[in-house]
Amino acid sequence: MEASMRSFASDNNSGASPEIIAAIAEANRGHAIGYGDDPWTARAEELFRAEFGPASQAFLVFNGTGANVLALSLAARPGSSILCAEGAHLDVDEAGAPEAAGMKPLAVGSSHGKMLPEALEETLASLRGIHAARPAAVTISQPTELGTVYTAKEIGRIAEIAHGAGLALHMDGARIANAAVALGLPFRAFTADPGVDLLSFGGTKNGLLFGEAVVVLEPRYAEDAPYLRKTRLQLASKMRYIAAQYEVYLGQALWKRNAEVSNASAARLAARLASLPQVSLAHPVETNALFAGLPPAAADKLREKYFFYDWEGGLVRWMTSFDTTEADIEGFSRELAAALSAAGSAGAR
Amino acid sequence: MEASMRSFASDNNSGASPEIIAAIAEANRGHAIGYGDDPWTARAEELFRAEFGPASQAFLVFNGTGANVLALSLAARPGSSILCAEGAHLDVDEAGAPEAAGMKPLAVGSSHGKMLPEALEETLASLRGIHAARPAAVTISQPTELGTVYTAKEIGRIAEIAHGAGLALHMDGARIANAAVALGLPFRAFTADPGVDLLSFGGTKNGLLFGEAVVVLEPRYAEDAPYLRKTRLQLASKMRYIAAQYEVYLGQALWKRNAEVSNASAARLAARLASLPQVSLAHPVETNALFAGLPPAAADKLREKYFFYDWEGGLVRWMTSFDTTEADIEGFSRELAAALSAAGSAGAR
Amino acid sequence: MEASMRSFASDNNSGASPEIIAAIAEANRGHAIGYGDDPWTARAEELFRAEFGPASQAFLVFNGTGANVLALSLAARPGSSILCAEGAHLDVDEAGAPEAAGMKPLAVGSSHGKMLPEALEETLASLRGIHAARPAAVTISQPTELGTVYTAKEIGRIAEIAHGAGLALHMDGARIANAAVALGLPFRAFTADPGVDLLSFGGTKNGLLFGEAVVVLEPRYAEDAPYLRKTRLQLASKMRYIAAQYEVYLGQALWKRNAEVSNASAARLAARLASLPQVSLAHPVETNALFAGLPPAAADKLREKYFFYDWEGGLVRWMTSFDTTEADIEGFSRELAAALSAAGSAGAR
Amino acid sequence: MEASMRSFASDNNSGASPEIIAAIAEANRGHAIGYGDDPWTARAEELFRAEFGPASQAFLVFNGTGANVLALSLAARPGSSILCAEGAHLDVDEAGAPEAAGMKPLAVGSSHGKMLPEALEETLASLRGIHAARPAAVTISQPTELGTVYTAKEIGRIAEIAHGAGLALHMDGARIANAAVALGLPFRAFTADPGVDLLSFGGTKNGLLFGEAVVVLEPRYAEDAPYLRKTRLQLASKMRYIAAQYEVYLGQALWKRNAEVSNASAARLAARLASLPQVSLAHPVETNALFAGLPPAAADKLREKYFFYDWEGGLVRWMTSFDTTEADIEGFSRELAAALSAAGSAGAR
Repeated sequence: MEASMRSFASDNNSGASPEIIAAIAEANRGHAIGYGDDPWTARAEELFRAEFGPASQAFLVFNGTGANVLALSLAARPGSSILCAEGAHLDVDEAGAPEAAGMKPLAVGSSHGKMLPEALEETLASLRGIHAARPAAVTISQPTELGTVYTAKEIGRIAEIAHGAGLALHMDGARIANAAVALGLPFRAFTADPGVDLLSFGGTKNGLLFGEAVVVLEPRYAEDAPYLRKTRLQLASKMRYIAAQYEVYLGQALWKRNAEVSNASAARLAARLASLPQVSLAHPVETNALFAGLPPAAADKLREKYFFYDWEGGLVRWMTSFDTTEADIEGFSRELAAALSAAGSAGAR
Repeated sequence: MEASMRSFASDNNSGASPEIIAAIAEANRGHAIGYGDDPWTARAEELFRAEFGPASQAFLVFNGTGANVLALSLAARPGSSILCAEGAHLDVDEAGAPEAAGMKPLAVGSSHGKMLPEALEETLASLRGIHAARPAAVTISQPTELGTVYTAKEIGRIAEIAHGAGLALHMDGARIANAAVALGLPFRAFTADPGVDLLSFGGTKNGLLFGEAVVVLEPRYAEDAPYLRKTRLQLASKMRYIAAQYEVYLGQALWKRNAEVSNASAARLAARLASLPQVSLAHPVETNALFAGLPPAAADKLREKYFFYDWEGGLVRWMTSFDTTEADIEGFSRELAAALSAAGSAGAR
Repeated sequence: MEASMRSFASDNNSGASPEIIAAIAEANRGHAIGYGDDPWTARAEELFRAEFGPASQAFLVFNGTGANVLALSLAARPGSSILCAEGAHLDVDEAGAPEAAGMKPLAVGSSHGKMLPEALEETLASLRGIHAARPAAVTISQPTELGTVYTAKEIGRIAEIAHGAGLALHMDGARIANAAVALGLPFRAFTADPGVDLLSFGGTKNGLLFGEAVVVLEPRYAEDAPYLRKTRLQLASKMRYIAAQYEVYLGQALWKRNAEVSNASAARLAARLASLPQVSLAHPVETNALFAGLPPAAADKLREKYFFYDWEGGLVRWMTSFDTTEADIEGFSRELAAALSAAGSAGAR
Repeated sequence: MEASMRSFASDNNSGASPEIIAAIAEANRGHAIGYGDDPWTARAEELFRAEFGPASQAFLVFNGTGANVLALSLAARPGSSILCAEGAHLDVDEAGAPEAAGMKPLAVGSSHGKMLPEALEETLASLRGIHAARPAAVTISQPTELGTVYTAKEIGRIAEIAHGAGLALHMDGARIANAAVALGLPFRAFTADPGVDLLSFGGTKNGLLFGEAVVVLEPRYAEDAPYLRKTRLQLASKMRYIAAQYEVYLGQALWKRNAEVSNASAARLAARLASLPQVSLAHPVETNALFAGLPPAAADKLREKYFFYDWEGGLVRWMTSFDTTEADIEGFSRELAAALSAAGSAGAR
């Protein structure tokens, strides 16, 4: 991939927002105490409290896998199961990190990536007493790995089941800004309010350079967090450079501007696909991911121009980003149409 | 601590070198495949190979705790012991991260922070067969936590013992540039050459923003590294921003310029202390750390101006940094002299 | 359950063979060095070598969960996946013990409890590089949790795939004697010969008091075993009392006599069920387990006399044991017929 | 070692009390539900409650390492430190099992094997905030690894410090019966009463065949225990054979009769040693262990007749057992005197 071209492979292929680079450069002044005891971190933590409520606590970390493992470690015991939707990132894409930390992801029936409440209840009912891994938490991805979004009400229903079974509810918010824009809601309205206890708040996929946060919404899980952050390899010594990014991201609503662009770009691309009968979309396009079925020859042809990933079920995944432009969509659509046409006439020969 | 003032508390209190900020800004162009499959990372890896030899492999990670745990995981088995010097960071300052990863740091007799070869042999001889945690590796810090430096020959002697017992030799090089400057040797001459197998190569304490590397010097430990990097929560999605820093750090010898300043600053401060009879240095000043004994009242007085840490044995630790200036040393020395004087006359009353 | 009555709930509900009690009493003479350095253990280890070949090594342990976790620990790395059949005990009935030891059971498509080779190949092909948990081993249960048995040829095929992918092949032989009797083969012919590398050899479900063995068939996995046995909490101090049981079990073919009874009892019960049209068997009865569908009211009625477990899919599980008698089968069949009849007439009302 | 000869190497070299063999044989009747849902286990659990109070709960397990790791897992978090006396079994003789379970034993100053309260306070005070492994529990061995015994008052003092710091107090009671006899107190008076929260109750070193118990004295630690017992590989399927031993051991005070013999034997041997000036005892003989210094040539000579272990500091360890007889002591003393004499005259030549 040429560095100047915009990809549709993943939103982490994009760089950082210019505001983020500026914030980092601006934070590069003088000395500051390490490990989070600095004014940038204090301000960033305050901004998280403003979003999630005064009882919440945010812990800045390095990356999404780290955020998930740290957050779930706050609720889990050795060998605990963590109930997740089928195909959840935690179960299939974390390189065994949850298990290396002693946790067992346990897949629950889902539809378009969203855990089905009745399937959650069934799975809980099916566990065989002391022989099953004891569940400690339910985790949902918002948006899901398939780009779909839970409503606040749906989250409340899952929280109700989780809490009724004595479990914590965790949200993997690697792309939480895209969900917030899709729902048109503040973060709190679909996290703390409907009962989420632990949140992995992501920013890297939406214009940050690096750095996520574990937000502990239910205070009883917070006690170990300052210690476990280092135990789980997530304590940055020069934390100000993560914090300074969040000052802009939360304090100047950069999260919103960026996610609006990527969601709108995906909608625009979906609209273009509607006119291409050989392309079908497998899931509703609610945020910035599209899962498309198309003739393999056309996909191969398109790959000469763009790098993107195959997905289960013979699909391909295309993602838009905070810096996707209308011209990018036009260019991609044009190349796709050409690839389909070339593949079609090749097939007709 | 006021943000514009330079601290002597730790070299991680300093910010990043301007060249590093520039490199990050420069890398912020266009899209790049995530998780290390990008041209910046390829170039950084090549620079590491140039330093450590064609059979070596570098894996960029987030921080020092992560580097240590990942590197040692490549050699360890469940419950393995890792032999380290008394007071090693791995044993006392990693928040149980090695143990959470199933490893047991085992302290070996040392002098001024440097593991004594005969103590290593004794400890190995004392282990009770299947009842002791089976040793998997020896780890040494270069420079040590007390600022002292192993010679290449001393490292070779420890490597000989480790290899003779079937163990890997790991080096915690959180401040490896300071050691290289102190020794006047290229990295390879005191790592791969005398038998180090696994290296945690640090940069954050010497002017980087964030990002370290695990360098696998003995290829037989490399096979699992690409996988375990994610399992150990150290896989950056936008890896180019770590890699771009190393392009400058290694490619333009920034590591050397920075470490020369911090080492020279420490030597200058040590020279100033020599004229203050109430201050004694507990360890040779070989890199950028000074461990000083002084009247507690004077330390308290000095703390009104500077933040720094107490250390074992009634000592305090002062560290210089890549951006320490002569004026900083003069200012600190002046305040110290004043504090000593004030404390002395207070004591005399 | 009254203590004098024989259950059909599980083969671990039976006691120990009288020969086993006698062997333990006989071993209770004088002092012996602890932790396995005693003559009973030496003899038991020799008997295992006689069964599995001179390069094999047996390590006596406490129980089946311990045997599985220890055996797989010899092949696994942190976060490794262990490919198993859907519904494998390792995945659903070990209380998260594999995960607490850092391993990820990964379910592979199966039929009647037996892993399908093509499904194994598909799963291996589907793993996403460094993002998936790296596979370390394939594990199969022989007999399976559903009472079915792999042929030696089927095991060879799975071994071929596993070894081709660089993975170890582990067998969970909690009821291995029942498989050997079903196949009419010596242990070695369906373990070491077709390529099994690591074996959990069970005896407790077939007449032992307690005590299983990890048999390392591929010597390269043996090096850590003496150490990891204690690390994995499986080192008995008075090991002679496990070893003495195996002297009888292997040395006097007690395993064979016992498993012949339990397999034959299950066959006899299956034959009786064939005359009861309201009862259907879900899986072939190849060893000592029967999975039956029957009217729930009849199951409830039968439970007034016998304790047994519900199973997935609306089934119940009945198991025979080494001490099941013809009279037990007759009694159980009679009560079952009566329960069916009572339920049927109740349903007719 | 000839099987008919009694050793002084360890109390686990002895066999089982005849009453224990009889109890196991007696329990071998009929079928019983597995995993502890049987009448023997119910009775054993009731006997533990009678000893330790109605709020206590006992969980039968396989061995001492398992008991310690399970008990401490109930209080620990990932990477927690467990404060123990220098040389504690948990730190030096458990093959890294605590670390493999994510815990860090942290040695505290001690005298004759007993943790010093002031050293415990010092260690707690010295921990560096979020960088140190966070302590979760204090553990003491009663009797200690050196055969000494804490008074109830001493335990109360340690409990006070532990609880004051928010930590659980665990007792490793591998030889707890010997301590109870030495103190002349019921178990409860030096466990639950002075504040022990979690207890590893051992029996194997005092006449049992196998089987220990985790006794949860502080109910808030009990919730996870039934699950973690299996996760930590300690759930016996035929639990009645452990329980039946405890019916005799606790219900018929076998623990007391056995420990009285071993303690008295050690006292008798100590008295004999008093008349041998070349032999010195390094620690008070309070239970059944003697740590002796003697000329190496005499130790070598004695080893021709008896197997025993070397210990740190040039000492040897001799232990008595529940089946040690006066004749054994006489025989051992005689051989020791002869060995000293032979070594002495050899030395004189």
